[in-house]
Amino acid sequence: MSDIKLTYFNGRGLAEHIRYLLKYGNIAFEDIRIEQDNWPALKESTPFGQLPLYEENGKVASQSLAVARYIGKKINLAGDDEWQNLEIDSVADTLTDLRLKHYPFYQESDPEKKEKLKQSLLSETVPYYFERFEKFITKNSGYLAANKLTWVDFFFATTLDTLTRILGVNVSEKYEGSSKLKKKIEELPAVKTWIAARPETPF
Amino acid sequence: MSDIKLTYFNGRGLAEHIRYLLKYGNIAFEDIRIEQDNWPALKESTPFGQLPLYEENGKVASQSLAVARYIGKKINLAGDDEWQNLEIDSVADTLTDLRLKHYPFYQESDPEKKEKLKQSLLSETVPYYFERFEKFITKNSGYLAANKLTWVDFFFATTLDTLTRILGVNVSEKYEGSSKLKKKIEELPAVKTWIAARPETPF
Repeated sequence: MSDIKLTYFNGRGLAEHIRYLLKYGNIAFEDIRIEQDNWPALKESTPFGQLPLYEENGKVASQSLAVARYIGKKINLAGDDEWQNLEIDSVADTLTDLRLKHYPFYQESDPEKKEKLKQSLLSETVPYYFERFEKFITKNSGYLAANKLTWVDFFFATTLDTLTRILGVNVSEKYEGSSKLKKKIEELPAVKTWIAARPETPF
Repeated sequence: MSDIKLTYFNGRGLAEHIRYLLKYGNIAFEDIRIEQDNWPALKESTPFGQLPLYEENGKVASQSLAVARYIGKKINLAGDDEWQNLEIDSVADTLTDLRLKHYPFYQESDPEKKEKLKQSLLSETVPYYFERFEKFITKNSGYLAANKLTWVDFFFATTLDTLTRILGVNVSEKYEGSSKLKKKIEELPAVKTWIAARPETPF
């Protein structure tokens, strides 16, 4: 039995897809949530000053997508061949691109500028990405890649959740394939149980 | 014999580590370089409006790190086990974080603001990352991960080249391990031959 710890802030953010995957794979882990006050002291000890941190039998790794890929392989949610893994990885990095596009909005404090950024996200960025995700989902029998459930679908579900919470608008509402895929992930029994039990946090 | 094409702008940017890897692996490929004028017409046909595009036997994939990982596996430059792959992937995504930090500088047109951003990159960001890369390189016998040469070392070398060219300062000059690793990659015979033969471009 391995000794697994996941350290993140008290929120979903870039850790929640890892939590979903660990729950889905029935892998026991310690869900460590640190408060902002304790972050400066911990930051110095992390590889590059970032969370989440994944610890397995005393070895530590960072970067949320790298960790998700690692766990995905462990629980048979990777591709059947390396081309499928490339498809999966390609969508994962595209989801990161999409996440990065909403950071300027998230960080903007001027209400007028913030509203402008929001409108541009909702009228341009979101449709651009989701129209394309829809094509991938249609082509892959309801999943994003490899024609089956893989770890990137979990990252998709939590990314949609993050964007929806931060923008205050259901970003995938108009996109049937995307909405269905998110729901499919959230209704996997282990994930559903986790969602009902997890700490309530704004993001 | 597979039919491989790599499509990018006429520059190094996010394609050059892929070119290094293909050359190192002795994999023949068509090095397609498109001019900015032709980009709008091509953009619509790409998965998410981005280059590079990697094509193998008619199948197309995007995202430069996903492609590098795929080729890395093909030419035995991946980890020996999944934990090593996690280490490699973790450094790769950290290099992307570092690249993203210089984009505001790259895009700034106001000379005063640009100079401020440059100074902050050189006095804070670069030392922060490189002090930590040095630790990784010391721990991994001169490489970034897995105690051996892997595909992420190629991405490291081209990222240092990009940052150095964009900032106009040799970013790894003070960091011995990093400088040596970059040199080691650039002196691999196939890479050296490629560097001597490749088109001269500013970035």
